[in-house]
Amino acid sequence: MMELGERKAIELIQDILSCASIDVLGMEDDCAAVEFKDEYLLLTTDMISGEAHIPENAAPWQIGWYVVAINLSDIAAMGGEPFGLVVALGLPQNYDVESLKKIVEGMNSCALKFNSSILGGDTKEAEAITISGCALGRVKKSDIMLRKGCKPKDIVAVTGELGLAAAGYYSAKNIFNEEKGIKNLLEVQPRVNEGMALAKTGVVTACMDISDGLASSIYQLGRINGLGFKLVFDQIPISIDANIISEKLQIPIEELALYFGGEYELLFTIDRNDIDEVQKALSKFGTKLTPIGEVVKEKKNTLIKDGVSTFLKNRGYEHFRRKP
Amino acid sequence: MMELGERKAIELIQDILSCASIDVLGMEDDCAAVEFKDEYLLLTTDMISGEAHIPENAAPWQIGWYVVAINLSDIAAMGGEPFGLVVALGLPQNYDVESLKKIVEGMNSCALKFNSSILGGDTKEAEAITISGCALGRVKKSDIMLRKGCKPKDIVAVTGELGLAAAGYYSAKNIFNEEKGIKNLLEVQPRVNEGMALAKTGVVTACMDISDGLASSIYQLGRINGLGFKLVFDQIPISIDANIISEKLQIPIEELALYFGGEYELLFTIDRNDIDEVQKALSKFGTKLTPIGEVVKEKKNTLIKDGVSTFLKNRGYEHFRRKP
Repeated sequence: MMELGERKAIELIQDILSCASIDVLGMEDDCAAVEFKDEYLLLTTDMISGEAHIPENAAPWQIGWYVVAINLSDIAAMGGEPFGLVVALGLPQNYDVESLKKIVEGMNSCALKFNSSILGGDTKEAEAITISGCALGRVKKSDIMLRKGCKPKDIVAVTGELGLAAAGYYSAKNIFNEEKGIKNLLEVQPRVNEGMALAKTGVVTACMDISDGLASSIYQLGRINGLGFKLVFDQIPISIDANIISEKLQIPIEELALYFGGEYELLFTIDRNDIDEVQKALSKFGTKLTPIGEVVKEKKNTLIKDGVSTFLKNRGYEHFRRKP
Repeated sequence: MMELGERKAIELIQDILSCASIDVLGMEDDCAAVEFKDEYLLLTTDMISGEAHIPENAAPWQIGWYVVAINLSDIAAMGGEPFGLVVALGLPQNYDVESLKKIVEGMNSCALKFNSSILGGDTKEAEAITISGCALGRVKKSDIMLRKGCKPKDIVAVTGELGLAAAGYYSAKNIFNEEKGIKNLLEVQPRVNEGMALAKTGVVTACMDISDGLASSIYQLGRINGLGFKLVFDQIPISIDANIISEKLQIPIEELALYFGGEYELLFTIDRNDIDEVQKALSKFGTKLTPIGEVVKEKKNTLIKDGVSTFLKNRGYEHFRRKP
């Protein structure tokens, strides 16, 4: 698996699968979208497992929160209203019951915060703690946001600020402020309300979350749409924590803000005439919307920094590859 | 977790969870049933992980088939039409790509056989191979079958034959015929078509699959309905393989047929006047229906064998407990 990497593995899997008699959208998206009367049902799953995803001193409550949050983020990216999750818990035989309770409380809190519910699940024995969530959502057919659909000259924008997860990771790893670092990494806020509001505007031309990192997400959008992107580095909203860690550890800020991943902001495109409408739709959630560049016809992704244009690197977090 | 056991863990989890603003049925069933217009959406998840569930020489194709089959079985038990699954795959970094392909082929074959599809998923790094499936189904509101609903004097019946999984387990373990044993254990046939047909009769008063074993399932039905069951041992349809293993290893046949688990037949109750109708509904699938006892008012589960009535033991496969 190491030579193959996660994205190639997914392609290989998609080549094998065949569909029975239903219409499915979203094979390039993080949720499957199944036609159901006048709506799409959105179905997604995300798993976390042992050392690969859970920092050593993470609180069980945070682990529970995180697994629900990352599943809801996939629903959010397509503009869906999440209405239920099921969760499969694989736990070692000697796992402690109080920690299990805290995990469930974390899951429950995150689900309720976004007006959703844990509807059921499965508990099993496993060698390492493994939690797999599965979220179900719904969206009106006319509202669904897909990764495919942007056109040259569209503006590309993000919600919130970037670099928080990377800062959290390095902060926890170097024990500057382990607690805050883990909090930044795990207590992510899926943009569920923002996603639904964006979808309702009807003007978003493409959308995804940036869980694999901004650069990697831009490459995915470029490939799916047969287009390129021009990003302006100075416009990218970067969290203070990322700037502090960048200085402290002498890691270039681009590494933290563009190439790391683990963030759950939305990345989306709109026609430049629609920006006021979209800004207005997001304003009631106190969520910042920042244009960071534009879509271009040429299939090339560039980053303009201090007036100099360079290639955006096609890197991000990818499972089975070596760790950053 | 070992002292607690799986069923107590589930109760503990259910105590913590709270529901947002939706109507949910089936908190005592294996699927969550969410009201959606004039139907219920059924959502379920089942995970398998490493040594705890996968026999050493299992073929990857069989592992893929199995994880889809056990998820579809939960949909079947409620009379649902499965219409899609998502699957999260946790794989060790050094996992071999050809085996991954075979797993996906097995999943795909099982989904297609029951007119469903693998719609998407997630691949992640994990210490031991862990696969979590999540199936989505639908059922008309008036058709849904729940565990709750039977009444005294109802007949209790099962589809197919019992003891196959237990025979498979012991056969594989003792290497009498490892290949056939693993086949019996993993290549299970979820009763999807039978479940839908049973649901459409509208006369089934309670239904579940017997994945935890017949005795354990009877206890669960008894508790949920506040009733008891009287089973007649000689009526229980037992597979030839189970009888052979019982003789060969001198394991009482009750152990294999009643107390083992890992089977995916349906256990259901009906009024005795409805038996012809139900028999007719199942006949087109070539599936045997066998009455094995009746519901009684007294909260006591008994087993009549050779004319002697004994207590049915409340035992079955339970995760986190020691292995049989």
